[in-house]
Amino acid sequence: MTEVPVDLGPVPPFWKQRHLLGLEELSAEEITLILDKAEIFRRAMEAGHRRIPVLAGKTCVNLFFENSTRTRTSFSLAARRLGADVVDFSAATSSLSKGETVVDTAKNLEAMQIDAVIVRHRTPGTPHLLAQNLRSAVINAGDGPHEHPTQGLLDILTIRQRFGRVAGLTVALVGDIQHSRTARSNIWGLKKLGARVIVCGPSTLVSPLWEQLGVEYSYKLDDILDRVDVLNLLRIQFERQATRPFPSVREYALLYAMDRRRLARTKPNILILAPGPINRGVEVTAEVADGPQSAILDQVTNGVAVRMAVLWLLLAVRN
Amino acid sequence: MTEVPVDLGPVPPFWKQRHLLGLEELSAEEITLILDKAEIFRRAMEAGHRRIPVLAGKTCVNLFFENSTRTRTSFSLAARRLGADVVDFSAATSSLSKGETVVDTAKNLEAMQIDAVIVRHRTPGTPHLLAQNLRSAVINAGDGPHEHPTQGLLDILTIRQRFGRVAGLTVALVGDIQHSRTARSNIWGLKKLGARVIVCGPSTLVSPLWEQLGVEYSYKLDDILDRVDVLNLLRIQFERQATRPFPSVREYALLYAMDRRRLARTKPNILILAPGPINRGVEVTAEVADGPQSAILDQVTNGVAVRMAVLWLLLAVRN
Amino acid sequence: MTEVPVDLGPVPPFWKQRHLLGLEELSAEEITLILDKAEIFRRAMEAGHRRIPVLAGKTCVNLFFENSTRTRTSFSLAARRLGADVVDFSAATSSLSKGETVVDTAKNLEAMQIDAVIVRHRTPGTPHLLAQNLRSAVINAGDGPHEHPTQGLLDILTIRQRFGRVAGLTVALVGDIQHSRTARSNIWGLKKLGARVIVCGPSTLVSPLWEQLGVEYSYKLDDILDRVDVLNLLRIQFERQATRPFPSVREYALLYAMDRRRLARTKPNILILAPGPINRGVEVTAEVADGPQSAILDQVTNGVAVRMAVLWLLLAVRN
Repeated sequence: MTEVPVDLGPVPPFWKQRHLLGLEELSAEEITLILDKAEIFRRAMEAGHRRIPVLAGKTCVNLFFENSTRTRTSFSLAARRLGADVVDFSAATSSLSKGETVVDTAKNLEAMQIDAVIVRHRTPGTPHLLAQNLRSAVINAGDGPHEHPTQGLLDILTIRQRFGRVAGLTVALVGDIQHSRTARSNIWGLKKLGARVIVCGPSTLVSPLWEQLGVEYSYKLDDILDRVDVLNLLRIQFERQATRPFPSVREYALLYAMDRRRLARTKPNILILAPGPINRGVEVTAEVADGPQSAILDQVTNGVAVRMAVLWLLLAVRN
Repeated sequence: MTEVPVDLGPVPPFWKQRHLLGLEELSAEEITLILDKAEIFRRAMEAGHRRIPVLAGKTCVNLFFENSTRTRTSFSLAARRLGADVVDFSAATSSLSKGETVVDTAKNLEAMQIDAVIVRHRTPGTPHLLAQNLRSAVINAGDGPHEHPTQGLLDILTIRQRFGRVAGLTVALVGDIQHSRTARSNIWGLKKLGARVIVCGPSTLVSPLWEQLGVEYSYKLDDILDRVDVLNLLRIQFERQATRPFPSVREYALLYAMDRRRLARTKPNILILAPGPINRGVEVTAEVADGPQSAILDQVTNGVAVRMAVLWLLLAVRN
Repeated sequence: MTEVPVDLGPVPPFWKQRHLLGLEELSAEEITLILDKAEIFRRAMEAGHRRIPVLAGKTCVNLFFENSTRTRTSFSLAARRLGADVVDFSAATSSLSKGETVVDTAKNLEAMQIDAVIVRHRTPGTPHLLAQNLRSAVINAGDGPHEHPTQGLLDILTIRQRFGRVAGLTVALVGDIQHSRTARSNIWGLKKLGARVIVCGPSTLVSPLWEQLGVEYSYKLDDILDRVDVLNLLRIQFERQATRPFPSVREYALLYAMDRRRLARTKPNILILAPGPINRGVEVTAEVADGPQSAILDQVTNGVAVRMAVLWLLLAVRN
């Protein structure tokens, strides 16, 4: 009953991607294709189809050089629900401490007949390096502050589900723009689909240089509240900051936390996103995080659907 | 051949539990139902039925905030032998270090379409907190010194297998009663099924207050040896004790270790249990642990059967 | 399509092994049988047969007391591709820190109805100790500097694939012979199959005593280059050495690194092996490691095939 075939539809001939390295590399058409397929997977899951074994016999490896559970678990569930086998390979127990290069580690895994390498690494460009050296599909699960494309895709899918479109919307990314790979992936994806993007945060974390990419910037959340359709509240990445870029967490919360008072000044159908894990009381109050405008848990469900779509598009069509 | 259908029998209408938080919360009838179903799973496993995929399409998460292998592995095997998928989520690599609350972590996992959350946490009541906030089935795999219900159930199943009954038996729990969640779950379960319970150990680890719950207490193992049917030798939880509650391990062993000499003074059909991992020479000598009265490894096999029964009762009947 | 039956051929009656503890314990006939079956699995995998579920319903445990990813992942993939379930049990999260013996840990796992225990431990003889105490199949995945039989088998399979035979070849093991379990397993296996073996490295790591086992020794790689058919470049196990057995890594590389200059002096069809993870520039230069004489990634693929053969021979025939 859970294995009734699901109609995933055709893969159009313009889809030629062999890897998912970032949203910068994708066209609007390709992003839309992934979102459309993710929507099919999301609906199939909600209709009770927990296993859609279109990738039976395939093997994916989670090659995570940074700790993660949320993203790793989401990819694992996505792969297994497609019938693929998943191997976890974490930095703590890896051969890297024995002096091996990242490419050698990945090539060794590939020689065990692996089909997809899902990689997280603190060095930007690591997925690109692997893509140049492997036959397998490489999926970027976060490369330092550079890109985290499946996070960008799941944010955009959540926006599209709420508004029925992305083009013409105004989306503000709030907080730690400088250290955020999620911000970069959102910016690329949203711009390509025709949204207006504002980055907003303290001047130590938001640069005027973003204007060169067609992105508006603001240092004051209160200045932009009344004209945004979506607020994506980025986590303050304390663990990624060498120095504290604002005087205190309390000062940050005073200026940027989404609370009831600020919510009252937004458009009535405002959509609140947060990639999580959220620091309650820092970037968002509990009241707003758990309120009707918030789609935080919806994002998580969409994350599995997006990853199923990406794995299927990269692997099922490959041979 | 290993997937021949096994007749699990009906689930009677009185079974309404959606979570397994502790044996304190269960009636004698409900405990007996779990034991009866566990007996069916135990026999099916022994008859070679390694996979009974009645939970195919379901996903369980091991949300362990304390290190464990035995219990986690037992739950994993139980779930997988029922055809469910299992995700491990351990504290070491978790987002908790990023400031997220336990409830947010669990809700995020649930949003990935998880059906059961198996939780171990050092704070008593954590499973209850999750049960109030999740739609998933919550199973307590140990909450601090409070309860460890599946351990209680597997101990009681092992007793029932040996004696054919629980009512009327005298069961002594020996050792570190104060820090033992296993003791608490055993006491609740045994009392409900009509057994007499004695807690026995140094006065620093055994309180006279237990009498208020209808439990006898004793500071001298030698005083109770000749009138007990079952001795459940709890592990000295060195890692859970802030101060050493007895002068030396040697002194403890002198007064409480089950050895050949003490065994000679028990009833001939005495049953020796130990939840393990055992400290050989501390709470039990090798000779007794490996002797015919011991059912230590039987407990482990029953552990998988009990967990299969619990998962099946909570998940299969849910929708 | 991926589950079309593969003809694995018969298991001849001389195969009586219940464990794989080392190549020292096996006859030439038994080693050849494993290699022959591994060859079938290798070809089946290359023909697209990713799942050959002849061990469906079986459960294997990776009981690793030393960190590993390559070997553990290889065993996991081998077991799962045969349809078996795999449980990981690593030292970091194990009950060993709670004072349990290795045998008790393994017996507990076995009581959960496990069929094979794949064990890595820094103490030589640990697999033998377990084999004496368990009903399950025990597979040595490395016991200190003693043996690592599946590594030996995969090296020998790679040699046999290249030359069509093993007898009569001259194989040099280069580097850290003293600390290498891979060296020991290679020596036993190669000698039994009729190869000539030379161990070569600094006098602090290579002992003249090897001559007593019919193995030639040399302190100078340059002296043996022109008469070897195979060079197996062992990793310098910095993490296993109490003191540094040579003045500097640079000095070691000067005397023992396989580089272009040395390669020019070998037989034209020389085969270069390295068990990995490799230290590029130490035991082998990048140019040679990635060159046509190198079979380093082939070894990895053969590793999965060898482990499939071993698991199948030990488990499928057992009952």
